[in-house]
Amino acid sequence: MDHETYMKEALAEAKKAGEIGEVPIGAVIVKDGEVIGRGYNLRETGNDPTAHAEMIAIREAAAKTGSWRLNDCTLYVTLEPCPMCAGAIIQARIDTVVYGTEDPKAGCAGTLMNILQDGRFNHQTEMITGVMKEECSTILTSFFKELRRRKKEQKMQEKS
Amino acid sequence: MDHETYMKEALAEAKKAGEIGEVPIGAVIVKDGEVIGRGYNLRETGNDPTAHAEMIAIREAAAKTGSWRLNDCTLYVTLEPCPMCAGAIIQARIDTVVYGTEDPKAGCAGTLMNILQDGRFNHQTEMITGVMKEECSTILTSFFKELRRRKKEQKMQEKS
Repeated sequence: MDHETYMKEALAEAKKAGEIGEVPIGAVIVKDGEVIGRGYNLRETGNDPTAHAEMIAIREAAAKTGSWRLNDCTLYVTLEPCPMCAGAIIQARIDTVVYGTEDPKAGCAGTLMNILQDGRFNHQTEMITGVMKEECSTILTSFFKELRRRKKEQKMQEKS
Repeated sequence: MDHETYMKEALAEAKKAGEIGEVPIGAVIVKDGEVIGRGYNLRETGNDPTAHAEMIAIREAAAKTGSWRLNDCTLYVTLEPCPMCAGAIIQARIDTVVYGTEDPKAGCAGTLMNILQDGRFNHQTEMITGVMKEECSTILTSFFKELRRRKKEQKMQEKS
């Protein structure tokens, strides 16, 4: 499978989040070469703490296939999953997770812990990391850099 | 706060799940003495791997308050949260989690790990365990006992 092709799709989802002021993280779920679920971070817009990219993509894929079991599916996500999303991936029995860049603050697929491959749970996934790492990382650092710039600008305007 | 009063509400939610053949787990979220979110396990009915009791209650409470931040809220759940739900609780910044009985297979609030109180994440919760433990445990064991009985009966009928 050409991982870059699908990671580009996940990046396109991430871009949609960034355009509406959400932290730009995107995900797609692929089965037999077809994208069956897409998602981007909608936490602020939806006032929903569970509205991460992976969660939205998982729910869409499950609705499309008519089953909560997403075996034979691969999830592509730009950022390493947090505990909630890693847990949802296990719940959905997803075969393989491909992510772009690590999350040093909350990553639970190898960084802080590895929920995806913990033998005590009833499912483990294959894992491929670092696909289009630079692009997946840059979209986030640029977003936060711009956010800081705007906040600084706002403070300057308030003072003047 | 009278924890039993609210755990009874969570147990009433769990019962609703059991009545439609779902594993009987229930949750409520309480703010200033008022129940602002309710949920029971709907994984099979909704074909949704994320439709755990806690997730549904969290999404309802966030929709009701108009914010993804559920500070000053207490979540009551009959069974110890799994990694997904424990992660969602952290994401939602919930103050306190009260649960009835441990989950030896997937519990991530003290049994296999403790996602709720891991200092590496950006939020930790208070935790109270064992409230109405026997009732919360019995509703599950009775459900699985009945499930096994029915499966056995079905096999006997198929053979005859």
